[in-house]
Amino acid sequence: MDTSATTARTDLGTAATPDASRVHPETTPPVRVALLGHGTVGGSLHRLLVEHREHVRLATGRDVEVRAVLVRDASRSRAGIDTAVTLVTDSLDELVATQPDIVCEAMGGIDPTREYLLTLLDRGIPVVTANKQLVARHGTELFARAAAAGAQLRFEASVCAAVPIVRMLRESLAATRIERLLGILNGTTNYMLSAMTAHGTDYATILAEAQALGYAEPDPTEDVEGIDAAAKLSILAGIAFGTTVSIDDVRTRGISHLTADDVAHAHVLGCRIKLIARGERLDAPGGGSRLALDVTPMLVPEAHPLANVGGATNAVLVDGAPFGRLVVQGAGAGGPETASALAGDLVSVMGSEPSFLTRDPHVAHLEIAPRDSRAERHYVRMLVADRPGVLAAVAGALAAREISIERVLQQRADNGRATLVLTTHPCAPSDLDSALEGVESLECTVLPLLELETPR
Amino acid sequence: MDTSATTARTDLGTAATPDASRVHPETTPPVRVALLGHGTVGGSLHRLLVEHREHVRLATGRDVEVRAVLVRDASRSRAGIDTAVTLVTDSLDELVATQPDIVCEAMGGIDPTREYLLTLLDRGIPVVTANKQLVARHGTELFARAAAAGAQLRFEASVCAAVPIVRMLRESLAATRIERLLGILNGTTNYMLSAMTAHGTDYATILAEAQALGYAEPDPTEDVEGIDAAAKLSILAGIAFGTTVSIDDVRTRGISHLTADDVAHAHVLGCRIKLIARGERLDAPGGGSRLALDVTPMLVPEAHPLANVGGATNAVLVDGAPFGRLVVQGAGAGGPETASALAGDLVSVMGSEPSFLTRDPHVAHLEIAPRDSRAERHYVRMLVADRPGVLAAVAGALAAREISIERVLQQRADNGRATLVLTTHPCAPSDLDSALEGVESLECTVLPLLELETPR
Repeated sequence: MDTSATTARTDLGTAATPDASRVHPETTPPVRVALLGHGTVGGSLHRLLVEHREHVRLATGRDVEVRAVLVRDASRSRAGIDTAVTLVTDSLDELVATQPDIVCEAMGGIDPTREYLLTLLDRGIPVVTANKQLVARHGTELFARAAAAGAQLRFEASVCAAVPIVRMLRESLAATRIERLLGILNGTTNYMLSAMTAHGTDYATILAEAQALGYAEPDPTEDVEGIDAAAKLSILAGIAFGTTVSIDDVRTRGISHLTADDVAHAHVLGCRIKLIARGERLDAPGGGSRLALDVTPMLVPEAHPLANVGGATNAVLVDGAPFGRLVVQGAGAGGPETASALAGDLVSVMGSEPSFLTRDPHVAHLEIAPRDSRAERHYVRMLVADRPGVLAAVAGALAAREISIERVLQQRADNGRATLVLTTHPCAPSDLDSALEGVESLECTVLPLLELETPR
Repeated sequence: MDTSATTARTDLGTAATPDASRVHPETTPPVRVALLGHGTVGGSLHRLLVEHREHVRLATGRDVEVRAVLVRDASRSRAGIDTAVTLVTDSLDELVATQPDIVCEAMGGIDPTREYLLTLLDRGIPVVTANKQLVARHGTELFARAAAAGAQLRFEASVCAAVPIVRMLRESLAATRIERLLGILNGTTNYMLSAMTAHGTDYATILAEAQALGYAEPDPTEDVEGIDAAAKLSILAGIAFGTTVSIDDVRTRGISHLTADDVAHAHVLGCRIKLIARGERLDAPGGGSRLALDVTPMLVPEAHPLANVGGATNAVLVDGAPFGRLVVQGAGAGGPETASALAGDLVSVMGSEPSFLTRDPHVAHLEIAPRDSRAERHYVRMLVADRPGVLAAVAGALAAREISIERVLQQRADNGRATLVLTTHPCAPSDLDSALEGVESLECTVLPLLELETPR
């Protein structure tokens, strides 16, 4: 174990020193992190901090070490925790005794989590949290105590997991005037509505399916009645409009009354049904603004940026001046995704100023890959003489380079010419070039064809 | 003029103090800002800082004052500059003599901008810049000098204007491993390709149109040949993959060789053609990674998140672990939009930690608007008895409340019942409720219908 752990804790609460990126990690003690909770999110964060140690070091010039984990039952064995480095405890006092520089909260719930965070913040220990309910209900109290103690409190992970909407609102758009915020903030209902739209399934069937797949809880009320979305909206609207919002301010309707017929009729009207969380600044009669807040299924025109947000994806659209409109979308749930947001906040609390391109002078420059290192599908359009044997010649030239054809469209053009369009299975670009060189054509356009892959 | 301007400059380069948000603005001297350039972007930023003074104060607890503006010709009259507050000069020395706390660069170009920024950074003055070419070509040098002097250098506005992709990569995703970045980084070509797709227009016609509208330059080479996108990709890929990237590392093809036929064939293949900037981490043969970088028109499947990014909008998609996939889109150009990004960076450099919901204890809580304060279009589905006069009764009930009907669909259902679907013109929700109360129906679903409005 690193003996430098016994040195005084660094003053991380007061943030950035531009010098941090120039400090060499080997000569600087690691940042001591403690986790509250070691379930799906906490465990993912722990793994991330071990596996992405190098990325954290490049971003901050510091190493991070998880020194303590608070769990409900400390006697249960925890796979993947190196107990030589990390204390597993059910006592907050024991956790505090490890002198954490930062605490990451992923245990959820209000009690005893609220008390724990207040205790930590009062001691000036910065906290990053993934706890939506706690921030929605007790955010104002927590922030007052954090400010009084001069400790940072960050909560990106509490809303829409990996989608960086909290940072966008609090930092990128801090100097702007936001007029409206529309969000698809609940993955379960968006998955259900997407499936109802795609397959014409009715509500009860798709709910049972979502429950079987683990996308919906055995008691789905929080999701399907819009309560989860309303809690998230109350957090986001508070930041966006610079005011305090209670979840009770949000008029909330869920999706449980919708039928397959509604979805079908929406389609006839050129729309999709989405559960939309909406905050909007309206003119108040006596001047100034007031705020309309609701969560409700809405008919969304197919060309709207939120209409094509499918599956369990979350998305938020913000309109305002002078930036116009911004839309951000991504995974709104999941252990690793939520852990990613906690880690981003953790790096910000560590306070080293964001670095530029090469994050560390000791990092090797990444080599640029040669053109053929990636096989791709291609689109080829050729203008050829319209005579027998041309398609055979093209197909033969491709076959000679072992490039196989996926689709062919052939069309007569003017003046005895024909347009030949084909797509290939994945092949090296230079093989395709060589193959096409041997074919006589008047015009030839080759474009790569993007695969519709899901993220890795 | 505020006499506090003569006090020593505050040490903004070293960033966040959690106390900043508790400092009362009246008792704290304003932050002195200087602008390099006062064209479309610089002028917009100046206006933003005056008009959104209150938002900046709420976000940071400080006032901002533009004390100096550097322009090429200081003798020209500048509408909207209050010369009692703001010095207009063509001399960097005179600008520096106003002791700026932060300098915002919106003059563009390499010379003399590079020299100016180096001079400012060497003196420890933090800089935020909108200069894409400068960051792409001289970013490494500028950052080295900034780090040596302990001054911040931020550049969100240099890539995709208001889209907060730089912050997302440098801060939110700092602890992650990015595998791939795909972007629509050039608004001009995306506008052109979108119009070619929508109207079947050929390349030459749409280019002339875009030039007439001011969307394309008289010499469109930088845009249509992909050079602008390549410069932006080199900046983003450097951050995303933690390496140095030169614009020469990017294999670049533009859209000038595309025909209306290519667009039509892409449609037959279920795709749209987009100019895609792409950075991808590939496995190197000896282990480790190498980087493939290209800008090229690609066929993008219609269900892909980038396929529906229309008009002059920019978008960036990032795949990686453990966050999965994030997509962000917004205005990629424009004076006010770029100014918005500069202002976000400026607020971050001012270093006050992001605040929570109520940004200031003195701010009034925004009143919640009553339900009827916003008229909306509605979708109404009713299951009614299939007998003569039912539609007339519904239409009559709505007319009695002065709600006008936009569309009606009527369909026979089972058991002597009919489904009646209608959409209304904008009306108050409670008027609609009252109208429908008077109609006998077995089932009734009312949903708001989102307008497909453009952002304000």
